[in-house]
Formats: sequence, C-alpha cells, structure tokens
Amino acid sequence: MKTVTIIGMGLIGGSLGMAIKNKDLAEKVIGVARSKEHLEEAKKKGALDEYTIDAVEASKDADLIFVTTPMNIIASTVKTIAGVTKKGCIITDAGSSKASIVEEIERSISSDVHFIGGHPMAGTEHQGIRAATKFLLEGANYVLTPTGKTNPEALEKLKVFLSALDVNIVVMEPKMHDLAVAGISHMPLAVAVALVNTINDLETGKEEMLKVAASGFRDTTRIAAGNIDMGKDMFTTNKAAVLEMIEKFKSSLNKLEHLIKEGNTEKITKELERAKDLRIKMYAANS
Amino acid sequence: MKTVTIIGMGLIGGSLGMAIKNKDLAEKVIGVARSKEHLEEAKKKGALDEYTIDAVEASKDADLIFVTTPMNIIASTVKTIAGVTKKGCIITDAGSSKASIVEEIERSISSDVHFIGGHPMAGTEHQGIRAATKFLLEGANYVLTPTGKTNPEALEKLKVFLSALDVNIVVMEPKMHDLAVAGISHMPLAVAVALVNTINDLETGKEEMLKVAASGFRDTTRIAAGNIDMGKDMFTTNKAAVLEMIEKFKSSLNKLEHLIKEGNTEKITKELERAKDLRIKMYAANS
Repeated sequence: MKTVTIIGMGLIGGSLGMAIKNKDLAEKVIGVARSKEHLEEAKKKGALDEYTIDAVEASKDADLIFVTTPMNIIASTVKTIAGVTKKGCIITDAGSSKASIVEEIERSISSDVHFIGGHPMAGTEHQGIRAATKFLLEGANYVLTPTGKTNPEALEKLKVFLSALDVNIVVMEPKMHDLAVAGISHMPLAVAVALVNTINDLETGKEEMLKVAASGFRDTTRIAAGNIDMGKDMFTTNKAAVLEMIEKFKSSLNKLEHLIKEGNTEKITKELERAKDLRIKMYAANS
Repeated sequence: MKTVTIIGMGLIGGSLGMAIKNKDLAEKVIGVARSKEHLEEAKKKGALDEYTIDAVEASKDADLIFVTTPMNIIASTVKTIAGVTKKGCIITDAGSSKASIVEEIERSISSDVHFIGGHPMAGTEHQGIRAATKFLLEGANYVLTPTGKTNPEALEKLKVFLSALDVNIVVMEPKMHDLAVAGISHMPLAVAVALVNTINDLETGKEEMLKVAASGFRDTTRIAAGNIDMGKDMFTTNKAAVLEMIEKFKSSLNKLEHLIKEGNTEKITKELERAKDLRIKMYAANS
C-alpha cells in the first residue's frame, strides 16, 4: 500500500499503526485523532508517519483506511470520509458489533467506495495509545464481514494486507458475527457482571463470601473488571443477539438447576462431562 | 502433637502430611488409604512416617485426625473411628460442604470426642497424591465450623496447630459456610457449566463461536473443566444453598437483561460499575 490512514489512535488504531510500520507494509501511515497530545504520543511510539486532526484531509489520498474510533461514531465517520476518498480506496472499521454498522454504511455510501466491516479480536484490560503494542494483533482472530454488496477484489486486497500482520482472518456474515460474539463475549460479560452483583446485593453472607473467595470466582468474573464503556457498547449496539444468547443461557442454567433440584446425579454428571469436554476441545485442559 | 493421623491420601491429605512433616509439627504422621500403592507413593513424597489400610488401628493413638476422604464417606468414617480414639483426641475433616456432615456427626458421636468441621480451600486442576505439595495450603483460606457443641479448648488447639501451617483460618457456622461456598464456588460452577453447554446446544453459530472464542470465554469457563466428581458433590451435598444462590443469580441476571431490553444505558453503566468496583475490591484490578 502507498498510504494507510488510521482514524482513531487508541489501543487498536495505535497497535495497527505500529504493526504496519514495523513490518513496512505502507509507504506512509497517517494518524487521525481529536487530541494532538495523543497523536504526538502515537508518533513517538512509531504508530504513524504524519498526523492531523482532520479526518477528511487525511482520507483524500489514502489507499486503505481503518476507522478505529468508538462504536457510536464509526458509521458517521465512514459516511463523512466516503465522499472524498479516491477511486478504489478500501475502508474498514474495528467495531465489536457489525450488522447495524455495516447496514447503515452500505445504505449510505456510493458503491465506488469499498467498505468492508472488520473486527480485530484483540484487547487488554488497558486502553488507549499508551497500551498499544506492535504485537497486539499477532495471532489474534480478525473477523471480516463482507456482504452481497462487497467488492470481491477489495476483499481480497484487504485479506492480503491483513495476512501480513499475522492475524488469523475469519470471514462471516455481519449477523453471524454478532451472534458469535454475543455468545462467546457479550453474553458471558452479562453473566460475569450478574455474578458479581449477586454477591453485591446479598443481605446475608456477603462478608463471609468476600473472606473465602478464591481463584475460581476470580477467573469466572475477570471480564467484569474490564472497560465500562466497551461493556455498555456491547449491550447496546449488539442488543438483539445479546438478548437471544441470554435466553439460551438461561435455558441451559434452568436445565442444570432442575437436575440439582431432582438430585439426579447421573444427569448432573453428564452435564458436567459435556461442559468439560467442549471446554477442553476449545482450550488446553488447564488453561 | 505426638501423633497425627490422616485418613485419605489424596491431594489434600497428602499435602497436609507433607506440610506437617516439612514443618516438623508432629512426632509421627500415620497415613491411611485403601491402596498400598498410593500409601507407598505418599511415603516416598514425605507425606507420612507410617501407613496402614486400617483406619481404626491408625486412630487409636492419634492426638489429631484429619479425615480427608471423599465427601460421601466422611461421616461414616468419623463415626467408625470415634469409638476407638483416646480421650482428648481432635477429629476434623476436609469436606467442601459442612452443615449436613457436622450435624450427622455431632448427633452420633460421644461428647468425649472432639469433632470440628473443616474446609481447607485449596486445590488444583489435578487430583491425587501425585499432585500433592508441601506448599498447597500456604496462604489458603482454611474454614473451621464450630457449633454450640464444640469444645472451646479443642478448637483453640486445632487453630494453633493449623496456624503453624501458614493457612488463613476463617471461623463460621456450618450453614453460613455452606451459603458462602455456594455463592463463590458452587453456584459459579453451575453458571460456568451452563455457559459452556449453551454453546454445546446451539443449532446455529456453534462453529463460528468456536472459531472466535478468546481469553474472555476461556477465563469465565475455566472452572467448568475441573474435576467431575467434585462438581457433582458440590451440587448434591450442598444442594439447598446452591439452589438458593442460583435463584439469587437469576434475579441479578434478569435485572441486567431487563435494562438491556430497555436500552437503559445509564442503568446498564451503573450495573457494570457496581460489578467492577466489587471485583476490584475482591481482587487486584488486572488479576
């Protein structure tokens, strides 16, 4: 690529810039953010070559644009810059839910502009350019969500570019992406938050539980200590899929609760075994 | 202590023996198990001085007896040995639920025998004497559950002995113990198992979820990959408290689900903040 523009110099945007420059995948990386202080820090970290606070200006000559802003301004940002980009420019985003964003953008922009929804599935508990590293995306799943309207050549170009970042590209439809992340990320966050708040709301035993809480509760609730705004975004921008997965989870818990009530040790054992088997299939046994 | 007998040479019994011998807290440690092979391995690991497969024989001269057998034979084991112990002998167990065991034992044994319920809250994913280490209990919470019938001097003696093992002694009533472990250990296991089985039971999206599952789902479900028999024991021996805590968890999740349905970002944020605050209070921010 000649010119890559990154709009939003936070954890993901900064890490993308650092990785692209580290692997020398662009002649020029232009960074955009609202704060010159952040942009100066991004420059010091080697995340960009040039910067500006003007997203439109930074988009004019770009061959590839990453929109890595907070969820709530992704669609409006893409719509704004889509009017000035040169022919063949590819725009992709990094929002954690896709169906509504992709639909809104595809409805609004000209078919000359190639937008492809993206979701780099990497993160830390820390936020912002300070936490960015050139390694953040290495080995991470990077979901792309093309639709029937997506230009196949643009998709192929984007895949080739991202492959060079050593990410694991996974392609799925926007709605399937949203259901998948609801199931393995957003709904589990709701469960972890509800778990901690179960203890929060106790009238009896809270103090004793805090005394004896150990590594099991720590691990099960780790994601409840994450970024508040990201959590709120998950529950609001991916609402339908999150609610669908919460219903499915409640059915699963009700089934187990019923077996415990019955004292049905045989079927309880079976449920424990089914869960253990899949968990071990998904991850190493003791991780 | 002169003679300490440990009945059950698994992870907890073996680790207790190793720690007691390492710190030289008894003149003699007698180990009891059903398998001579396990006892021989325990001896090699330095978990005992002498061994036998006869629990009664091993209990006659003991000053302190740990019953670290599986849950379902703790009460019968204590009742059997209580008839032969010498005056002043203290018996304690390591079962993970307490009210029913303590009640059954106190109803059955003579008041000359000093039984005090115990629950060393330490473990690994691995089981058995092979996984035992002299460090397992260091820094761990060790719950004791005396009742109105408990001899105060015996309790004090047991506390002094356990303190030398560098455990953190926590005293609570048997029923409160059961509620506390239901809340922070047994109910969260039910939740983790239900989470994994939600994915197991999906007709749509299962494959995609397995593709994009990352560290969040891994941590939230880690305990679902643990020992099946222990899980079954938690759900059966501590049934009432587990069901009580599952109900409370379901109320907490229903509340959050309702806010998500409403799209009430203000109250969603508040729930996320309440959970994050308590989680950080309980554990270090990023652990």
